[in-house]
Amino acid sequence: MGTSRQIKLGAFIHGVGGHIAGWRHPLAQPDASIDLGFYTSQAQKAETGKFDFVFIADGLFINEKSIPHFLNRFEPLTILSALAAVTSRIGLVGTISTSYSEPFTVSRQLASLDHISGGRAGWNVVTSPLEGSALNYSKTVEEHPDHAKRYRIATEYLEVAKGLWDSWEDDAFVRDKESGVFFDPKKMHALNHKGEFFSVQGPLNIGRSRQGQPVIFQAGASEDGKSFAATWADAIFTGHLNLADAQAFYEDVKGRAAAAGRDPEKVLIMPGIAPIIGRTEEEAEQKYQELANLVSIQQALAYLGRYYDHHDFSVYDLDAPFPELGDIGQNSFRSTTERIKRDAEEGNLTLRQVALQETTPRPLFMGTPEKVANLAAEWFEERGADGFIVSASIPNALNDFVDQVVPILQVRGLYRTEYEADTLRGNLGIPVPVNRYAAKSDEALV
Amino acid sequence: MGTSRQIKLGAFIHGVGGHIAGWRHPLAQPDASIDLGFYTSQAQKAETGKFDFVFIADGLFINEKSIPHFLNRFEPLTILSALAAVTSRIGLVGTISTSYSEPFTVSRQLASLDHISGGRAGWNVVTSPLEGSALNYSKTVEEHPDHAKRYRIATEYLEVAKGLWDSWEDDAFVRDKESGVFFDPKKMHALNHKGEFFSVQGPLNIGRSRQGQPVIFQAGASEDGKSFAATWADAIFTGHLNLADAQAFYEDVKGRAAAAGRDPEKVLIMPGIAPIIGRTEEEAEQKYQELANLVSIQQALAYLGRYYDHHDFSVYDLDAPFPELGDIGQNSFRSTTERIKRDAEEGNLTLRQVALQETTPRPLFMGTPEKVANLAAEWFEERGADGFIVSASIPNALNDFVDQVVPILQVRGLYRTEYEADTLRGNLGIPVPVNRYAAKSDEALV
Ligand SMILES: Cc1cc2nc3c(=O)[nH]c(=O)nc-3n(C[C@H](O)[C@H](O)[C@H](O)COP(=O)(O)O)c2cc1C
Ligand SMILES: Cc1cc2nc3c(=O)[nH]c(=O)nc-3n(C[C@H](O)[C@H](O)[C@H](O)COP(=O)(O)O)c2cc1C
Repeated sequence: MGTSRQIKLGAFIHGVGGHIAGWRHPLAQPDASIDLGFYTSQAQKAETGKFDFVFIADGLFINEKSIPHFLNRFEPLTILSALAAVTSRIGLVGTISTSYSEPFTVSRQLASLDHISGGRAGWNVVTSPLEGSALNYSKTVEEHPDHAKRYRIATEYLEVAKGLWDSWEDDAFVRDKESGVFFDPKKMHALNHKGEFFSVQGPLNIGRSRQGQPVIFQAGASEDGKSFAATWADAIFTGHLNLADAQAFYEDVKGRAAAAGRDPEKVLIMPGIAPIIGRTEEEAEQKYQELANLVSIQQALAYLGRYYDHHDFSVYDLDAPFPELGDIGQNSFRSTTERIKRDAEEGNLTLRQVALQETTPRPLFMGTPEKVANLAAEWFEERGADGFIVSASIPNALNDFVDQVVPILQVRGLYRTEYEADTLRGNLGIPVPVNRYAAKSDEALV
Repeated sequence: MGTSRQIKLGAFIHGVGGHIAGWRHPLAQPDASIDLGFYTSQAQKAETGKFDFVFIADGLFINEKSIPHFLNRFEPLTILSALAAVTSRIGLVGTISTSYSEPFTVSRQLASLDHISGGRAGWNVVTSPLEGSALNYSKTVEEHPDHAKRYRIATEYLEVAKGLWDSWEDDAFVRDKESGVFFDPKKMHALNHKGEFFSVQGPLNIGRSRQGQPVIFQAGASEDGKSFAATWADAIFTGHLNLADAQAFYEDVKGRAAAAGRDPEKVLIMPGIAPIIGRTEEEAEQKYQELANLVSIQQALAYLGRYYDHHDFSVYDLDAPFPELGDIGQNSFRSTTERIKRDAEEGNLTLRQVALQETTPRPLFMGTPEKVANLAAEWFEERGADGFIVSASIPNALNDFVDQVVPILQVRGLYRTEYEADTLRGNLGIPVPVNRYAAKSDEALV
């Protein structure tokens, strides 16, 4: 084992869960999405399972059609900061949009989380798929920027953020009581960024953390999304319905990373999975049916509509082929809507079938602990994944995974039995980025 | 005792302390401003002292002239969220600027902190005194708004924030598993705010907390500042050099609150104090001298310059009368620069005297625990203060206050021996604001 490639794991914690009707499950705690106790127990459970990180999703717009969990939930940076105080090794990854925030503030809050946690912060960079977000931010954004522009903004945003995180060289703070020298002014750097979307002088009013800079995650699988990920991301959160798709994505993004001059082994591809685990296949199937039965066809249509700017699907014949939708939804969840269209065409599916399948997709990672562990090992070894982001669509799914699947992976030598490090970068095996200014002075010396 | 008026206390935690050279003190931990352990121990100490809240200051611009503590410190919302997880009763008050942030994001992060902490969040609303802040935020702000405009922005910002915090009525989340009703759409409210500076639709994606809305603090003592405070603030952080000034401010602001139709007893005036406590008067004096001796005249001049847009005071004769400065500094710390001018004129002070006095002012609250307790009682009973925000200019000053002064105030019946409530509003004795929409439906019923 030792230096051999190891599976990485993240725990997607989202209160009552990603399933639209999961909160109705008999075992569900329906106010979990605003309960610190729930988040704490899930994070600590993941930490006993030696997970690399917890992952918090986010969104900036709701209306009466939003799924229940989105209506009333913690904001990522605040809940992660609270979790930092009650965990010691697990990484803390939060979703923040580059389309509706200021790089100085976000860089600072992430750096602060990174210091609070001793070097365990990560940032899932998203560009905000929902058009409605602009309605809550119209001081700064007149209208929701289009897909391409959102990624242009994100690119400049990352340049600024990474620049601000290097404001202080690692040894800038001398703090010598005797001489009265608190810092070395030569090691404090203003960024003086002036670009198309941002103009930020710096320096940031917080130094580098033990892991140098927060880890960059990315989610978004369009062409622009993949290029962005290959350039900037340390880890990529993705979603696939089968191994072949996962392998194609994996190869594609790793290839782009190599083309961008990066070491593809240091760009981790992590599909999300929502496992349903039973002691037997039958028990797992029963758990799945119990979940599927919580949702009505009306709710399923409304859920589908989320990917299409809340398009009203109730006007179509439920048992006719999935309708032709033209451009609807192209500016928000593009990769998802394209996949749905492809699946409907290939499977010759009706609207009813698509809606039910999208609402309660039968998880691939479903069955006994051995079966789920085998699948995880296969995806990992066959280069469909470097690890997984485990989400709980039914209560206790994370606990089942930690208690029943993790030990199998450990016995096979595919997964750690103890944390290698106490920073997120250290555990993910991603190097600490050298401070750009320190690098320059080194060059100057050569 | 029971319902009699009681002293309120806040603990100003700022790493190495507010004094420019405090980090050089033999007992100081010079990296305290980015050490979670330090903040945790101070917050927990304040909680054993039954303090109402901890208080975190903030700023958005640094340069090489900034005082050491400002260069490398936690961001308020993140550190307060971490402290929420390791405390249970004490309030958590953070400084956030209305000039360089978005009301949707800030309202949300504060509401999230409020839920994380079970109803203990507070917001110190500031408008950002430093001109340089604009250089870090030039996506949204072309130049630092002038003093009057900053308060106009702040006013509209508070309207939006308080509106967003009422997005959901208290009983909006039904969460009935049987019927599948998660929320009552009649109790979800979009704000649809369109104003001069902001346009925000809502609703906020988080509900009201156990204290309804975060508590509003304010700091800033100009005419505009006092009017703003009288309209919006539940508690006001101020600073005075003697009881007469404190009484004048107290009467002024309480009068403005009454004129604005508010109950002046529910608008708390809390001067900041930085006590130096010794077992004897001599020991206290010795502690003061030890602190004063840590600073050079060059550092003192630079410190003074902070209040005047980093004006260079080294060009003046140190032993001539304090120079005439015209408009310099009028757009940032106006109330402070006016006080300095007044003090210099009244005391016939030289520049050297002003600089040393501003850098290490001899604290009024200095001496034996009995003397400090007597002064606190006098300010409180003579209506110069409803309580105090205790800041540590020397290491252990907060601990000394908790261990030695608090018990005296408790014996005299002026201060609680146990928390009355577990929300910040509950302990401060400030009512939970009725949801504006719930109030309307009640009216409709009359
Ligand atoms: C697995 C996955 C998770 C995502 N999580 C979030 C999220 O938490 N918040 C968000 O605003 N967008 C999220 N997104 C949306 C993407 O960030 C992106 O905005 C959207 O997919 C459009 O970009 P694309 O066309 O490149 O996929 C997610 C997307 C994927 C594929
Ligand atoms: C006691 C006190 C504490 C303050 N704390 C902060 C702070 O933490 N951050 C900040 O940006 N401004 C702070 N300020 C500045 C004020 O918020 C305000 O911007 C400044 O005093 C100018 O407004 P004024 O002229 O009304 O006083 C403070 C002011 C006072 C009097």
